Amino acid sequence: MNSFDPFFNPTGVAIIGASGDPHKLGYGVVRNLIDYHYRGPIYPINPRASEILGWPCYPTVGQAPDPCDLAVIIVPAPAVLDVINQCGRRGIRHAIVVSGGFGETGAEGQAREKALVAAAAEYKMRIIGPNCIGIIDTHTPVNTTFVVGMPQAGDISFVSQSGAMCAVVIDWARGAGVGFSRIASLGNQADVNEAEMLAAVAKDPQTRVITAYIEGVTDGRAFMKAAEEAARKKPLVVLKGGRGESGARAVASHTGALAGSAEAYEAAFHHSGVLRAETMESLFDWARALAWQPLPAGDRVAVLTNAGGPAILAVDALESAGLKLAPLTPDTCAYLRQRLPDVASVDNPVDILAGSGPGLYAVALDALLSDPTVDAALVIQAPQDWFLPASLAEVVAEVAAVHNKPVLASIMGLASVDQALAILHRQRIPNFAFPERAASALAAMLARRKWLEMPAETATTIDDIDQDAAQIAINRGDFAGALAAYGVSIPPTRLATSPAEAEIAAKAIGFPVALKLVSPDISHKSDVGGVILNLEDVTAVREAYSQIIKAARSVAVVAGPPAEIKGVLVQKMLKGGQEIIVGSRRDPQFGPLVLVGTGGVEVELRRDVATGIAPLSLSQAQTLLDGTDAAIRLRGWRATPAADRAAVIEVMRRLAQLAFDYPEIGELEINPLIVLEEGMGAYAVDIRGAWVDRDAEATRDT
Amino acid sequence: MNSFDPFFNPTGVAIIGASGDPHKLGYGVVRNLIDYHYRGPIYPINPRASEILGWPCYPTVGQAPDPCDLAVIIVPAPAVLDVINQCGRRGIRHAIVVSGGFGETGAEGQAREKALVAAAAEYKMRIIGPNCIGIIDTHTPVNTTFVVGMPQAGDISFVSQSGAMCAVVIDWARGAGVGFSRIASLGNQADVNEAEMLAAVAKDPQTRVITAYIEGVTDGRAFMKAAEEAARKKPLVVLKGGRGESGARAVASHTGALAGSAEAYEAAFHHSGVLRAETMESLFDWARALAWQPLPAGDRVAVLTNAGGPAILAVDALESAGLKLAPLTPDTCAYLRQRLPDVASVDNPVDILAGSGPGLYAVALDALLSDPTVDAALVIQAPQDWFLPASLAEVVAEVAAVHNKPVLASIMGLASVDQALAILHRQRIPNFAFPERAASALAAMLARRKWLEMPAETATTIDDIDQDAAQIAINRGDFAGALAAYGVSIPPTRLATSPAEAEIAAKAIGFPVALKLVSPDISHKSDVGGVILNLEDVTAVREAYSQIIKAARSVAVVAGPPAEIKGVLVQKMLKGGQEIIVGSRRDPQFGPLVLVGTGGVEVELRRDVATGIAPLSLSQAQTLLDGTDAAIRLRGWRATPAADRAAVIEVMRRLAQLAFDYPEIGELEINPLIVLEEGMGAYAVDIRGAWVDRDAEATRDT
Repeated sequence: MNSFDPFFNPTGVAIIGASGDPHKLGYGVVRNLIDYHYRGPIYPINPRASEILGWPCYPTVGQAPDPCDLAVIIVPAPAVLDVINQCGRRGIRHAIVVSGGFGETGAEGQAREKALVAAAAEYKMRIIGPNCIGIIDTHTPVNTTFVVGMPQAGDISFVSQSGAMCAVVIDWARGAGVGFSRIASLGNQADVNEAEMLAAVAKDPQTRVITAYIEGVTDGRAFMKAAEEAARKKPLVVLKGGRGESGARAVASHTGALAGSAEAYEAAFHHSGVLRAETMESLFDWARALAWQPLPAGDRVAVLTNAGGPAILAVDALESAGLKLAPLTPDTCAYLRQRLPDVASVDNPVDILAGSGPGLYAVALDALLSDPTVDAALVIQAPQDWFLPASLAEVVAEVAAVHNKPVLASIMGLASVDQALAILHRQRIPNFAFPERAASALAAMLARRKWLEMPAETATTIDDIDQDAAQIAINRGDFAGALAAYGVSIPPTRLATSPAEAEIAAKAIGFPVALKLVSPDISHKSDVGGVILNLEDVTAVREAYSQIIKAARSVAVVAGPPAEIKGVLVQKMLKGGQEIIVGSRRDPQFGPLVLVGTGGVEVELRRDVATGIAPLSLSQAQTLLDGTDAAIRLRGWRATPAADRAAVIEVMRRLAQLAFDYPEIGELEINPLIVLEEGMGAYAVDIRGAWVDRDAEATRDT
Repeated sequence: MNSFDPFFNPTGVAIIGASGDPHKLGYGVVRNLIDYHYRGPIYPINPRASEILGWPCYPTVGQAPDPCDLAVIIVPAPAVLDVINQCGRRGIRHAIVVSGGFGETGAEGQAREKALVAAAAEYKMRIIGPNCIGIIDTHTPVNTTFVVGMPQAGDISFVSQSGAMCAVVIDWARGAGVGFSRIASLGNQADVNEAEMLAAVAKDPQTRVITAYIEGVTDGRAFMKAAEEAARKKPLVVLKGGRGESGARAVASHTGALAGSAEAYEAAFHHSGVLRAETMESLFDWARALAWQPLPAGDRVAVLTNAGGPAILAVDALESAGLKLAPLTPDTCAYLRQRLPDVASVDNPVDILAGSGPGLYAVALDALLSDPTVDAALVIQAPQDWFLPASLAEVVAEVAAVHNKPVLASIMGLASVDQALAILHRQRIPNFAFPERAASALAAMLARRKWLEMPAETATTIDDIDQDAAQIAINRGDFAGALAAYGVSIPPTRLATSPAEAEIAAKAIGFPVALKLVSPDISHKSDVGGVILNLEDVTAVREAYSQIIKAARSVAVVAGPPAEIKGVLVQKMLKGGQEIIVGSRRDPQFGPLVLVGTGGVEVELRRDVATGIAPLSLSQAQTLLDGTDAAIRLRGWRATPAADRAAVIEVMRRLAQLAFDYPEIGELEINPLIVLEEGMGAYAVDIRGAWVDRDAEATRDT
């Protein structure tokens, strides 16, 4: 695989489809290369022109002289394949295909796109696009797009699966005076995909923060790997377009209903250190803060203001976002008390009052940033007529520069603040029109710090698995057997196909027992009277057997084709214990997900679940479980005694490993997992699963 | 009570404390009256000046000639009382006290404020402030503030408990080109409070939308009344500063722990038709949309775009906000198919593609607004270089004007859109820099329509209450008796103070029974082993009695002072049924709140509750209950049969009425209310309560 360098730092650029007509895209590309100061040679390729914008034209790319290692192609779709071949023969190994009319337009376009990729592969050529607007590197500089305007050089990169979003970023960045390093439009991703581009941008020394607009991933695990590697180096903020299904359509289990593609993205992003922005506004808000300011060491924020109302809103937003007000040391308060007006507030938020000027802001901010209880500062200014907002901007930047703590500003207003904002942005202090948005950015910075501080571990393999037994169980379609082979405890259980067999089984197991219908056609057995619990003697067992069979037959009558009835399981009843659900679903993008939470029949109503990525390390399993209320109950809540939390975590890890090891498992769920008191273990009482292949899909119960 | 007119439309204004020094507030007020074109006479009052900014000065307000019905007072705090008296003698009945140094500064200031109010009352004078920045009416026009700049005339009012927020609004409005009608800074609210000001602004014919920044209310029920009356006339959007306590500090019940002041504000706002904005940005976003566009008839939105990515974000945000994509009729799709480019999307979102211009936008928007399946339209433009964004702005406004459906725009970008935004704002089309914010505004518009469509009913009195029995029970401190008198069913219950008495009681009631500790010192009895259920015979009852007493004594040992043990209740056990909690808490601001949700011991962990305002009409009770998952279960969920939902609603109404009728009840809670199958009723199995007076606080159990 050859390097991405020529995309962002080409030695010479050929524009195939260059035009002298200012209304054509092929004109815009040549214009942008020139206007935005590309320093290498530019080769417009057009058989019907002699020169374009001062650069001599060549009839074909083959005739363009050296150096030339990047082609930008803007010819009609049917002509692109031929151009790719010409480029390949010419020795060009990097092409940006701007032309549309490929995979996005239907079957013919898809075939065209396939041919394009095949041709490129022949020459080991890498292609960005088709159907993209190209790339910008403000430091090289090079701009292969046709979009008017270019952001100033900066240190934020933007990678996008939508060309329009690139145009939005360019216009916004110019208006806001925010610098960018690279902008890359990926188009149809026939060859270069989002994961590769993230990796390339992560290596760019000019980029401090990576932002991305993503509608989907090419390969979930490859994306996660690239994202995590990028996020270890620099902040990665992603806006995900398309909400995805919350809960998969065809499901055989609660897990399927609760862990859809939306949850898969959420889990994958969280796992990989991706900061997920919910809106474009927060994408850019967070990016500025992350690019320009150091990460906070902790969650304690000092708020410095000249007015009460905006500070109250800031405190509300900080607390909502999980941050705290710094307590401030008595020394800081005493120092501020001496210097601020009498009725000023020296508690956090520190209110220096409307009459105070930039000098007092400087004194107070310096004191706050010197205070060891302060991890970050937010400086608020409500509009006033005493001094220029620009003076406050200068002062904030100057004081912030001598402390290694993040400082965010909210110089509020719109009519009076242009100059102040220009100063702040030049000095790398992010400003937010409203203090609530600053709180959101601080929360993102803190989330990144926390992720960086988590151990970067990979799930260790569990070594006491009986792989042979597991493989046999899988071959037999026996989900319970597979879980048992993976070390998950299951209460003693026997299959009975008559009341007499049920009686024998119950005696062998010991009372009390539960009886449960076995039918591949009935998924939620308790809903149809297929489960009877707490049977204390032989008579009760025989009666229950008949009752269950009768209930199952009546279901078959109501629902159409008769349900297959394989018999009834006789299972040891466990006394007491807490009900947990542990499940897995294989997501088409991200592979096996793990779900854990409060179990029982009300799982879907309660929705107290968290979703992660399989396999799970010990700490990943702990963190996942701790994201649910079930974890509070497991630790002992009110009259409920503490239960065997360690056993739950073991079951999570073992089920995750099983789902990971056997890609044929589509869904696998334990509900309830009965968790006994500490040290007494956890038992998989009900197990259901389904295979990946829809044709072979089956639901089986233990 | 005299009218508010002279505050917003004075015949003449005296400025006591007027100054010729441009650095003084008293200069700013005179300057603003002049600069912003107040048409009546201006009387600067200052004994040491002969004229200020061209207007002759008077030594005292008594010497100012007629007409003069408004005083703006900006003298040091200790001098304000004397000035108020002078104004009163002069016949002035309206004063705005800008001066600080009153209630906000401690005991001395509070005394000063009290004296001020007393003096004003002598003259039947109304006061805004002290410690405020005054008022603006852009239509009169009059501007009594000292803040530089004034918004253009418009139809949004802003009422604020923070002067700084007024300054923010003024600066923002000027920058954004958004017009305002009235801006009122309320200061300390010594006299005129937020409720009165809302009422006054609601009457203003120039105001179409009221916005407010509120940190607290003077009198909860008066605020609700004023807010609802205002909201019936025009949209009322409130930003609440200060999150309030979520869960009260000292609580005797789950209700106390779950329904704090934050929930009280939420319930009161919802009840009164207040649209609650979470951020300043959304406050202004919503206000523009509500002021400038009609309400949507329903939740079906058409999205018209020139690019895919931004439309996907719009759809995500619309769906998150509870809106839907309009399905479009086949006719509309066919019409669009004929006119749009071949590969354009004629499904909603309608993507006319990057190469299309304002003409095609006009054609498509007109078709969408003509479609009966469309309730509202969102027009998106990603930056492009083919035509001026201003042309699109003109076209959108023109087409929108001939349809009576809301049209919102998101002409995206920052560097290229100034002219377009100016046109849109002039034409009353709200524009949002990012489409997600437009979705939020549409959701607010829809929420308002839904509130307006709800019946504007007041809770009807329940007429079968035994008021005498209730009063007797209240006098005895018997919460269960009071609920029974209000028609709430309670299972047969007897108090026993020995194992023998328990046996007799159980026989009289009939088995099975439950035994429950009675102790005013132990609130959560089941947590300490104070509740034993399902007792089937005499032996079990006697044993349970002893066990409970033993458990209660051991609690007393652990927790310090011995708990008072009054005996054990013997109660009829109900078979099956669903567990609901119904509770009430008297909020210091808003009076009795009602809470309903999933009951049982895990109420606080589960948090499946909704909070409303007592008393409750039938439909209010239904709506409140339907805001919880408990309502789903009551209707029959999975294997759980439908329960007596009507009985729950009756209990809610009766408990709410009781809490409303007896202000001495601080907390009152039924948990669990056991709800039997449909038609079989609901029974208050456990009841706890507490009195308002903390000294007399007691917890009692049935």
